[in-house]
Amino acid sequence: MTQSPFSFAEAHHADTLNHLIELLRIPSISTAPEHRPDINRAADWLAAHMRAIGFERAEVIPTGGPPIAYGEWLKAGPGAPTLLIYGHYDVQPTDPDDEWLSPPFEPVVRDGNLYGRGTSDDKGQLYAHLAAAEAFLRTQGALPVNLKLFVEGEEEVGSPHLGTFVQQHVDRLACDAVLISDTSLLDARTPAIVYGVRGMLYMEVEIQGPKADLHSGTYGGVAHNPLQVTADILAALHDAQGRVAIPGFYDKVRPLSDRERAEMRRIPFDEEALCNEIGAPALWSGEAGYTPRERTGTRPTLEIHGIRGGFVAEGQKTVIPAKALVKVSMRLVPDQEPLEIARLFTQRIRELTPPTVKVQVRTMSYSDPAMVEPDSPAVQVAVQAYRQAFGVEPVFLRMGGTIPVVPMLDKLLRVPVILMGFGLPDDNLHSPNEKFNLDCFYRGITTSIHFMRGLAALRR
Amino acid sequence: MTQSPFSFAEAHHADTLNHLIELLRIPSISTAPEHRPDINRAADWLAAHMRAIGFERAEVIPTGGPPIAYGEWLKAGPGAPTLLIYGHYDVQPTDPDDEWLSPPFEPVVRDGNLYGRGTSDDKGQLYAHLAAAEAFLRTQGALPVNLKLFVEGEEEVGSPHLGTFVQQHVDRLACDAVLISDTSLLDARTPAIVYGVRGMLYMEVEIQGPKADLHSGTYGGVAHNPLQVTADILAALHDAQGRVAIPGFYDKVRPLSDRERAEMRRIPFDEEALCNEIGAPALWSGEAGYTPRERTGTRPTLEIHGIRGGFVAEGQKTVIPAKALVKVSMRLVPDQEPLEIARLFTQRIRELTPPTVKVQVRTMSYSDPAMVEPDSPAVQVAVQAYRQAFGVEPVFLRMGGTIPVVPMLDKLLRVPVILMGFGLPDDNLHSPNEKFNLDCFYRGITTSIHFMRGLAALRR
Repeated sequence: MTQSPFSFAEAHHADTLNHLIELLRIPSISTAPEHRPDINRAADWLAAHMRAIGFERAEVIPTGGPPIAYGEWLKAGPGAPTLLIYGHYDVQPTDPDDEWLSPPFEPVVRDGNLYGRGTSDDKGQLYAHLAAAEAFLRTQGALPVNLKLFVEGEEEVGSPHLGTFVQQHVDRLACDAVLISDTSLLDARTPAIVYGVRGMLYMEVEIQGPKADLHSGTYGGVAHNPLQVTADILAALHDAQGRVAIPGFYDKVRPLSDRERAEMRRIPFDEEALCNEIGAPALWSGEAGYTPRERTGTRPTLEIHGIRGGFVAEGQKTVIPAKALVKVSMRLVPDQEPLEIARLFTQRIRELTPPTVKVQVRTMSYSDPAMVEPDSPAVQVAVQAYRQAFGVEPVFLRMGGTIPVVPMLDKLLRVPVILMGFGLPDDNLHSPNEKFNLDCFYRGITTSIHFMRGLAALRR
Repeated sequence: MTQSPFSFAEAHHADTLNHLIELLRIPSISTAPEHRPDINRAADWLAAHMRAIGFERAEVIPTGGPPIAYGEWLKAGPGAPTLLIYGHYDVQPTDPDDEWLSPPFEPVVRDGNLYGRGTSDDKGQLYAHLAAAEAFLRTQGALPVNLKLFVEGEEEVGSPHLGTFVQQHVDRLACDAVLISDTSLLDARTPAIVYGVRGMLYMEVEIQGPKADLHSGTYGGVAHNPLQVTADILAALHDAQGRVAIPGFYDKVRPLSDRERAEMRRIPFDEEALCNEIGAPALWSGEAGYTPRERTGTRPTLEIHGIRGGFVAEGQKTVIPAKALVKVSMRLVPDQEPLEIARLFTQRIRELTPPTVKVQVRTMSYSDPAMVEPDSPAVQVAVQAYRQAFGVEPVFLRMGGTIPVVPMLDKLLRVPVILMGFGLPDDNLHSPNEKFNLDCFYRGITTSIHFMRGLAALRR
């Protein structure tokens, strides 16, 4: 009788860990040009590893930036579903270096955690799926599903070449479901499926008043100060109920279902802890009628990121600035369309702009919101896989942040994109002493094996 | 028969101009430490010149910064009034140097104008009084009044040591009237007496929200954005009628008299020309119920000079900033008291600050507003002197800017402080190609002779 993939995986924890550590030792920091050779090494390592564990085909595909490591095994037979797994092999920089207890690219295990840059974000989480695939291939000589694995190398710098890559390779990436492990469990015991991510729309508003900076003594009272105009406009973008005061802004927002709200209320929430985490005197009450969790995950928001103009150095200068520049972004939720919101925003800004100044509104970038239907069969396979590996029901979460690859794949491939994370909220992502809990890692492998098995049952 | 001071002055225009050019050749830029020796040379030159033309006593008095050049002639006899003339020998920097048509410290005459840094601001205007005193001393061997002349060397950097100097030398500076020539005529034909200057109150407001910058995806909706709070507060500082919305702000503002308003309406005003000068699409309507000239000269205003916080570089960062810093100043008019307004401002900011952030309000600096009574005998002497020298009635103006020395002398010496300028509005002060019209210069000398004669008639 052949060994089961589960027992193979369990018997090979040490080997698996050593392989992951090999990958982690490559300092593939995407933001640092001097690490470009390491970026290439990491992609090469992944392609070689995929070939070594039995993928039919694995290669490094060039892009305008860091290459994509791509591998596939497509011999699951007629009617078998195809799973696409996405991950990223690039990592964040390591500064401040002196705060690391052990060197970021010399991973070590302490207290059941593997410490090192990229352990949780995202090499370790990605590797759980490679280990699962290896467990199948080594024990069964086959996977229960067709598998495509694509790993990018510039996620930490905003994936500038990913959209083009996906568009150009829609056929190659065609699948029945996408699986991404780049998020967290709710806590060490409770797995979480992120079924929604917010979209984003980044705008710049430039208010031009006088042709040059003016003396406030001479012109105070007749020149309309662009910073005053800016403040007046920005204040008018929220109403007294904390709602975004742009006509039409909420028109396409999909209402929260009672089931979603009930699910969210089920998840423990500690307002005081959140307030301490933020470090502000009090939480903002935000949009009236929604709980803090609802506001951060399921409702659109508008934030001011910076206001440039005038004199901000030490000392005093009594200038009426010629212009002001504002950076604003909005987090969007289904079914808001970024370009439509950009139009409504622009229109609102124009309405609010007095005739004393000229205004320019620029759309800088955007990303769609995305949501996967929790009831879809592939998501239910994920629920079951988590349940089998962790022994508890996963919670369903909507994330406040934006993961551009999610709507990108959702839109182009038109299949469920499932976010099943194995990290923990305190993994120190982007910070010193990033870690990945080994128990989470090994449960992640088990979860992935269950997931592939479960998905195989959904034969077309 | 002795020569009259008028004919002496007229006969010596060439000598007078050459002496002024000697002073102008000294690059006494107060903001540049490398020009400190030039600062000292300019002060020395003035003291030596005062001695040379017959002042009883002239000296260079050290301060913590550039020295004061001080001279006096006090032999006008019992009951003769004492006149204190203030000026400054320091000048602005010259950049951008390549825009000067002739070198800034090699003064030349072109088209009836003397070009060079400091010609109008303030060496040339100051020198008109020295030439007037010389005309008296050379022809009469005496001045009709006691004269004290004090010239500072750090006006262009905000006169940081002047207050202390004046306080320490109140007895020495005691007088019956102060005369300052550091302003402009209305135009080449119309002299102007500035009888009011606005005061100033410079404040900083710091809004602290989260303990560190936050990710707007994760925390947008529960963290109150300090830039949003800032915009809300700043928008609330003006009402819909353009008034400053701080309770009590206008309580002590001395109402404009019908006579003042009538006098102001008498002065031609071209709204379109002002708008072109500012270069904005339209003038701001400002405080309702007041004309543009009234708003800039006689009404208090509040301006935002800069807002620091968040991300303002090129590109996009979706940060909720931990804090925001705002620089605001208010121009004040009689009888507003800067420290009382600071208290009202602080109170208003506190009221407007939501419990989600902490606020700090700091008073950075202030200067009192000042106004001289147009009917006072010394001012009437100025009116007559202008009338005699220019052949037309001077206009009375209130200035929007702040000249700290005016309230300082007004408060400490308790005598009329008279601002009689000889410059022109297009003299390019603080800019390349600063100039002083020679006709204005020579009329300035004549005006000063008339003024001293007229003041002598006000024997106690």
